[in-house]
Amino acid sequence: MIKAGIVGGTGYTGIELLRLLTQHPQAELAAITSRQEAGRAVSAVYPSLRGRVAQAFSHPDKAPLAKCDVVFFATPNGVAMGEARALVDAGVRIVDISADFRIKDVAEWERWYKMKHAAPELVAQAVYGLCEVNREKIRGARLVANPGCYPTAVQLGFMPLIEAGAVDADHLIADAKSGVSGAGRKQELNLMYSEASENFAAYGVGGHRHWPEIRQGLAQVAGREVGLVFVPHLTPMVRGIHATLYGRIAKDIDFQALYEKRYANEPFVDVMPAGSHPDTRSARAANVCRIAVHRPAERSGPGDTVVVLSVIDNLMKGASGQAVQNMNLMFGLPEAMGIDQVAVVP
Amino acid sequence: MIKAGIVGGTGYTGIELLRLLTQHPQAELAAITSRQEAGRAVSAVYPSLRGRVAQAFSHPDKAPLAKCDVVFFATPNGVAMGEARALVDAGVRIVDISADFRIKDVAEWERWYKMKHAAPELVAQAVYGLCEVNREKIRGARLVANPGCYPTAVQLGFMPLIEAGAVDADHLIADAKSGVSGAGRKQELNLMYSEASENFAAYGVGGHRHWPEIRQGLAQVAGREVGLVFVPHLTPMVRGIHATLYGRIAKDIDFQALYEKRYANEPFVDVMPAGSHPDTRSARAANVCRIAVHRPAERSGPGDTVVVLSVIDNLMKGASGQAVQNMNLMFGLPEAMGIDQVAVVP
Amino acid sequence: MIKAGIVGGTGYTGIELLRLLTQHPQAELAAITSRQEAGRAVSAVYPSLRGRVAQAFSHPDKAPLAKCDVVFFATPNGVAMGEARALVDAGVRIVDISADFRIKDVAEWERWYKMKHAAPELVAQAVYGLCEVNREKIRGARLVANPGCYPTAVQLGFMPLIEAGAVDADHLIADAKSGVSGAGRKQELNLMYSEASENFAAYGVGGHRHWPEIRQGLAQVAGREVGLVFVPHLTPMVRGIHATLYGRIAKDIDFQALYEKRYANEPFVDVMPAGSHPDTRSARAANVCRIAVHRPAERSGPGDTVVVLSVIDNLMKGASGQAVQNMNLMFGLPEAMGIDQVAVVP
Amino acid sequence: MIKAGIVGGTGYTGIELLRLLTQHPQAELAAITSRQEAGRAVSAVYPSLRGRVAQAFSHPDKAPLAKCDVVFFATPNGVAMGEARALVDAGVRIVDISADFRIKDVAEWERWYKMKHAAPELVAQAVYGLCEVNREKIRGARLVANPGCYPTAVQLGFMPLIEAGAVDADHLIADAKSGVSGAGRKQELNLMYSEASENFAAYGVGGHRHWPEIRQGLAQVAGREVGLVFVPHLTPMVRGIHATLYGRIAKDIDFQALYEKRYANEPFVDVMPAGSHPDTRSARAANVCRIAVHRPAERSGPGDTVVVLSVIDNLMKGASGQAVQNMNLMFGLPEAMGIDQVAVVP
Repeated sequence: MIKAGIVGGTGYTGIELLRLLTQHPQAELAAITSRQEAGRAVSAVYPSLRGRVAQAFSHPDKAPLAKCDVVFFATPNGVAMGEARALVDAGVRIVDISADFRIKDVAEWERWYKMKHAAPELVAQAVYGLCEVNREKIRGARLVANPGCYPTAVQLGFMPLIEAGAVDADHLIADAKSGVSGAGRKQELNLMYSEASENFAAYGVGGHRHWPEIRQGLAQVAGREVGLVFVPHLTPMVRGIHATLYGRIAKDIDFQALYEKRYANEPFVDVMPAGSHPDTRSARAANVCRIAVHRPAERSGPGDTVVVLSVIDNLMKGASGQAVQNMNLMFGLPEAMGIDQVAVVP
Repeated sequence: MIKAGIVGGTGYTGIELLRLLTQHPQAELAAITSRQEAGRAVSAVYPSLRGRVAQAFSHPDKAPLAKCDVVFFATPNGVAMGEARALVDAGVRIVDISADFRIKDVAEWERWYKMKHAAPELVAQAVYGLCEVNREKIRGARLVANPGCYPTAVQLGFMPLIEAGAVDADHLIADAKSGVSGAGRKQELNLMYSEASENFAAYGVGGHRHWPEIRQGLAQVAGREVGLVFVPHLTPMVRGIHATLYGRIAKDIDFQALYEKRYANEPFVDVMPAGSHPDTRSARAANVCRIAVHRPAERSGPGDTVVVLSVIDNLMKGASGQAVQNMNLMFGLPEAMGIDQVAVVP
Repeated sequence: MIKAGIVGGTGYTGIELLRLLTQHPQAELAAITSRQEAGRAVSAVYPSLRGRVAQAFSHPDKAPLAKCDVVFFATPNGVAMGEARALVDAGVRIVDISADFRIKDVAEWERWYKMKHAAPELVAQAVYGLCEVNREKIRGARLVANPGCYPTAVQLGFMPLIEAGAVDADHLIADAKSGVSGAGRKQELNLMYSEASENFAAYGVGGHRHWPEIRQGLAQVAGREVGLVFVPHLTPMVRGIHATLYGRIAKDIDFQALYEKRYANEPFVDVMPAGSHPDTRSARAANVCRIAVHRPAERSGPGDTVVVLSVIDNLMKGASGQAVQNMNLMFGLPEAMGIDQVAVVP
Repeated sequence: MIKAGIVGGTGYTGIELLRLLTQHPQAELAAITSRQEAGRAVSAVYPSLRGRVAQAFSHPDKAPLAKCDVVFFATPNGVAMGEARALVDAGVRIVDISADFRIKDVAEWERWYKMKHAAPELVAQAVYGLCEVNREKIRGARLVANPGCYPTAVQLGFMPLIEAGAVDADHLIADAKSGVSGAGRKQELNLMYSEASENFAAYGVGGHRHWPEIRQGLAQVAGREVGLVFVPHLTPMVRGIHATLYGRIAKDIDFQALYEKRYANEPFVDVMPAGSHPDTRSARAANVCRIAVHRPAERSGPGDTVVVLSVIDNLMKGASGQAVQNMNLMFGLPEAMGIDQVAVVP
């Protein structure tokens, strides 16, 4: 049994991890920390876990994290970078669900996250945990930077096109829509029910932290810098991301075949039949990204633009599900162990 | 007092018209028809109108429509084209909220709406009721084709750019999101609560009836054909459309100034300050289109793409509110009479 | 024109007041205060009011409140009691939408609101602003305590039964369900979208501040103390209260006739036909309480329990709409002036 | 492996069964029928099952149902009663999720369901599948009548009180609130998104089919007839039932202790700590009923009324989860096998 620790277990990625680890046949919860809830039973904070999680939250300073095989950071940005060094030195492997180790260019990271990075040397070591790109490196990684939710949906959606050089990589457009849980369990005004319900709006058009992360990932597969317009929107639902991606066609190929081939062996990417419109609920509470490719008319006949629809559950393939997928790879377990739940519909 | 009739008053555009006309100081409801609800009190079908609307629905064959000053068609597509001729001949003026008279190319209309047009000669006479473009023609019109909901949001959003020749008009992209009431009061599976709630999906990527309507409108102001990718999405809310519009910049001008100037005298178009993100609720139950213009980075520095955010309430500026605005113009009333309600927030 | 001031204008009752006053033919906004937003344009905080409200928020200490004809307190509990004295002495009339002056028994108030009352002598003067009970007193009042949202729905629902002595007043049951805006614009965890959406729960079963307010009101019409079980629930919607009321029948009378007679002349109480099930949306954004009365079977034949269904919009008849109704009465205006909007459906 | 068949697999109880059976270690799907979708892949109708269910829907006449070990009826009322006889004779065991075999008094059933019963002799044989009452009988049953969703929440909530004779059983009140999926995958107007969202209403106050079912169940444990007022409400969410139960206290005992003792050994009933308010999401997608007991004040001091809060997921413990629980009992499997999923929160 793998001894797993969770740092910062009270947020949404934390409770989702608990849901998954509780049902994972080869992992056991060895420690869970929360500064604020220290001493309180996990199931008192989350009654959905009554009878499933017996532990209480520990204070971070007292939790036996160094004795864990793996520690997940489900913390706000800026925490993992301060605590990872000691754990890595103690031989603990880390999956950081926050953004601390995702951006290789430390100066760029500091610009977007508005703080000084505490462990730049670990950034270099960290492996970006998008399994469909870095599977082999993840197996051997000591520190995995789990991808952001938007970056997961957008990169998986664009990747086959970029790899094939099939679109103009200087002018990619990602119009993304997220459920509210993507913003975390934060008490911010725009995340209140009475503000977010029966309402739809874009945000961060002038700049969003996931923009450099997506550009870095796509640049890696392109072998060159890419240009990207990224417009995120807040949608009145709890879970789910829908990314609608637009690329100007550079090579006139069979896009459906391209996607089917690229993801033929991927257990968690589902290329849907031509003409499909994946809905977010088909991925709800499941670790899967569903993708459809279209080439709509612009005037008459086939147009110059390819449109990709990519959906995930932001807390699963966009966060905790992918984190467990990374853990499975790191420990040589079957990749789908404990994360093969069927989507909850309706 | 203007005697107003409504044909097909049981749908959402019908009840919204009733809400507006009931509060309009210069209009009175002279007749309202419904084949299915004939004889039943309007307020029995819609208790929200108890004490406000005393009439019962009439059977279409018996209603005194020919004695009205204006008749609104709030019917499914294909009805107005069969009944408009007789009314026009009787001197009644018509605002058709359905799609029967919107597309000038009758063959194109028949392709998209999958029926033979019953009154092609009226199509030629009809004035497209987008007040911000055709205000003068509307004043004298006998028959106004009220624009569709998506077309209103998308055309108002793109128009200044097209008029100024500021973007590549061959490759426009409109990523649009609509609340569920946009589909009407139809009992279709995908519109059921348990299907549409906590869910988000694109639809009609392969072709949507509003695509030719938008292209026709933009072509008119461009003075040439335009190319457009139009991707509509269903959002889990009742009212509201958010159109996110992308254009490749052709002329490097001050976009904020362009929009402010274009709409300076428009009572129902609100150009928001630079950097804004209009939300759909700021237009809820109000006859207004709110617009913001952005020019986000694609790599570093200002990018090549202009992004326009345009929101309306699909039942107001996207349907019945605009219909009353057209009526006001047709009868020489102040344009805002009866449609100056403040948006309902929260 | 009545010069109206609003203290604490950034909350939901504040913005709803602004929506109403903006459209009121005999009132004008003379001052609006907010400690936090002082100096900022109202329309910058609430874009839905762009073009409608030109003012900025003032700091409470600098606002010309003493020159107003009427001041509305849309503040958290505990503010009005400290500021009312000076305004009353300056001849300003007050409508307090908070709870400061609702409970006549000051000790009881202090127990429930957990603070010392700053102006007990004003409590005695204050008139409880339930127009359907205290209409005449309200006309002459200098200080009106606007009823709470639950208390409005529950009292209007129970009152005819209590007045008629038709039910056992020792064992009333009020099972009430509220939309989330009833809790105000507070950043509390359980009011977040991701917590409140797709979720339903009771709260405060052990004790809720509206319980003594309802009991006081019903005791007044009963002429004796009443016993009440009050169970509020949070419902995943923004606006609306549905109170389901149960009373053990003490007198076997025609309940439908009782209600119709009691509310025959009330402009804002709508007794629906026998067998009806009022829905909250039929009151959305409208100043109305809709009521239906039932007598369901318990075994066979008519049962011993009368069931009353009572719905309001918590921000309208449950708060700001009723506040303007009170203002209209206080200033001798037609009672429905500025609050006769038709409900927004769908 | 148990060969399981599903008749009528396209509704919500059908897809929920598929989700559960797909993940059940001792059951395999042997047949699934749908008249309307015959020949179409299950995963084409429900993309959430892509990669999980390979079968297509069969026409009912051609499906190898008689070779199954167990057949679930997930059909509209009136279907199972016509087909059960032949299957029972073929040795197939049946779990009927519809209402055909729930009411022992056939005349009563015919009155409420408005049709003639086709197999009254099977009604007598059928075991009512509320595991917490009839566990032993279910083990040997050939035909189990799976309880309705409201009846499950209400009976589990009232049962300890009734068994103990602790409340006046002539005047029970059940105020129940259900998510929309409880009404099934039917295209009815009031179940449309634009009708049910941002709305709350009671329905069926004059009579609901679950009323006789609840009364029958409670009468069985009471050993006498009971009186019940049952008021169901439609809540704007997809899944979840919250029953708020009121009983006039007849015996002054420790209610918390009563409930804890009654359900101490029940794997799927969770009695929460005193003072709790269970929320429906704590049971979302999980096979559990969570219960809390309160005794609120009516005047001063402890009141005469006990209030029980009982929540379930209507598709799980209220339908398909309980159906699999019944299957497990019938086939001697561990009762929790395949239905021990942790609730999905948020």
